[in-house]
Amino acid sequence: MSGTAGEIGEFGLIARITAGVSAGGPVRLGVGDDAAVLRLGGDLAVSTDTMVENVHFRRSWSGPGDVGRKAVAACVADAEAMGAVPIAVVVSLAMPADTPTEWVDGFAAGVQLECDRAGVRLVGGDLTTAAEIVVTATVLGDQGGLAPVTRAGARPGELVAFVGRLGWAAAGLAVLTRGFRSPGAVVVAHRVPEVPYGEGRIAAEAGAGAMIDVSDGLLADLGHIAQASGVRIELNSAAFEIAEPQQAVAAALGGGDPLNFQLTGGDDHALVATFARGHVPEGWTVIGEVVAGDPAVLVDGAVPEIDGGWTHF
Amino acid sequence: MSGTAGEIGEFGLIARITAGVSAGGPVRLGVGDDAAVLRLGGDLAVSTDTMVENVHFRRSWSGPGDVGRKAVAACVADAEAMGAVPIAVVVSLAMPADTPTEWVDGFAAGVQLECDRAGVRLVGGDLTTAAEIVVTATVLGDQGGLAPVTRAGARPGELVAFVGRLGWAAAGLAVLTRGFRSPGAVVVAHRVPEVPYGEGRIAAEAGAGAMIDVSDGLLADLGHIAQASGVRIELNSAAFEIAEPQQAVAAALGGGDPLNFQLTGGDDHALVATFARGHVPEGWTVIGEVVAGDPAVLVDGAVPEIDGGWTHF
Repeated sequence: MSGTAGEIGEFGLIARITAGVSAGGPVRLGVGDDAAVLRLGGDLAVSTDTMVENVHFRRSWSGPGDVGRKAVAACVADAEAMGAVPIAVVVSLAMPADTPTEWVDGFAAGVQLECDRAGVRLVGGDLTTAAEIVVTATVLGDQGGLAPVTRAGARPGELVAFVGRLGWAAAGLAVLTRGFRSPGAVVVAHRVPEVPYGEGRIAAEAGAGAMIDVSDGLLADLGHIAQASGVRIELNSAAFEIAEPQQAVAAALGGGDPLNFQLTGGDDHALVATFARGHVPEGWTVIGEVVAGDPAVLVDGAVPEIDGGWTHF
Repeated sequence: MSGTAGEIGEFGLIARITAGVSAGGPVRLGVGDDAAVLRLGGDLAVSTDTMVENVHFRRSWSGPGDVGRKAVAACVADAEAMGAVPIAVVVSLAMPADTPTEWVDGFAAGVQLECDRAGVRLVGGDLTTAAEIVVTATVLGDQGGLAPVTRAGARPGELVAFVGRLGWAAAGLAVLTRGFRSPGAVVVAHRVPEVPYGEGRIAAEAGAGAMIDVSDGLLADLGHIAQASGVRIELNSAAFEIAEPQQAVAAALGGGDPLNFQLTGGDDHALVATFARGHVPEGWTVIGEVVAGDPAVLVDGAVPEIDGGWTHF
């Protein structure tokens, strides 16, 4: 069906977007009323993330399905980082009235696909007009009897480990920004992060001291843990494995150190956590340790002299 | 402190906005980590609302505090409409980098003021740049042992009653649109709705059959109840009290029926619900009844020939 969002109308769009959505499981009441109602087994973890056209994505670089998937992935990662079981999301979509219906359908399909991958349900949202596309997704997670794994719980003697990808999205953004579309693997990673769903809960069950998802960059996000926990974090550069596409991008862009993508690249939403020795879950890569000292993140014993992650404004 | 959002920076803005925010009560973990953590006594009600500059508000008509207050009020009303006790909100703010710091401070103060009025806590959010201001607020409510009051529970024989205001914001928008700034009471009502906080819970405890908050207009929102419940709703025009400012606006705008503001005006976020006879809570105004029949909303026995509420697109 062709046309624009304006021609289909608000209620028509809602009907299209929610066509395949169902309640069940912890969802006592899904889309269609003033609010959704969820039944949790423990405390609620809640977090919200906003993505703006031409700030977080470009329609020329990312398809509508990519945008829908990324919005869900980015917020679900925050619930993972508390050790919660992600249960549901609500998604707000603001867009120009002349947005093609195909774009909306693709976006909705992406939201649904990533919800399926993450094991969460779409339970509500809002639709409105705006000059540009702005997506806000809010995740609801169930702590289910486990205390939240905050940024403040890292203790000297613990190991630092991560799971997921580091610096792939940043490498993809670097090539797209320069007008290239390859290597394909990193471009795809920029469009949709591969969040290590379920690993946050595994980390919590393993007794993780502190945990965060890497959205601003590893150094920046470990810096948040160091500050909140009052500890120093020492990373070992030899522990990082540089993927071939990252080496290719670094070489193509002038020969910088490809490790920098991993240290400063955000948006892959890897999980990084601290664990007592002997308690690092399978599949996590140990990259350093927590020591006593003024809050800082060191690489091979020194404060790295590279840009430290993303902020807005 | 003068300057712009871009000059203060993301983390500086977050520090300013969250300066007066505290955890406590059901908030186990407030702002500052990957997610907030709440402890509920029952099922979770969740709803989200987005407001866009020049669609839902204009900076020339509404101050930043008004925008912050309205964002919180509009989403909290949705939790009220389920019969939940609103507990917390998360608020996302997208705005141009050159937004004055004073605007951000005023917005944050408005969010906090309305949170205090509504009895909820600000537990998280997101800040990002955008071409125009887009605010998304998500409310978390606690059903606390009571089943949600949906739109589908209206039964023939029940009375229809509302609490709060009808048509004040619409009258205010009407005069602002024509370049006037009076009557002041309706202009103020456009800027910030007076949500009847706590009345949703009272209605649920009184056994309300169906409930909705009036955001699209009374006829449109009662239409949602009629459709979802499979009932006809008959309203009695004599039951509506037309406030003096609404009469003044209708006269000034050419002598239309001021009742139309009450029947079609959205954005005051009154609550309208159905109750068994003898169970209408104190302070609610009975305006009609639920009867068997094809879903429709009648006024004085006929389908009213007036515009039916707001939709986007």
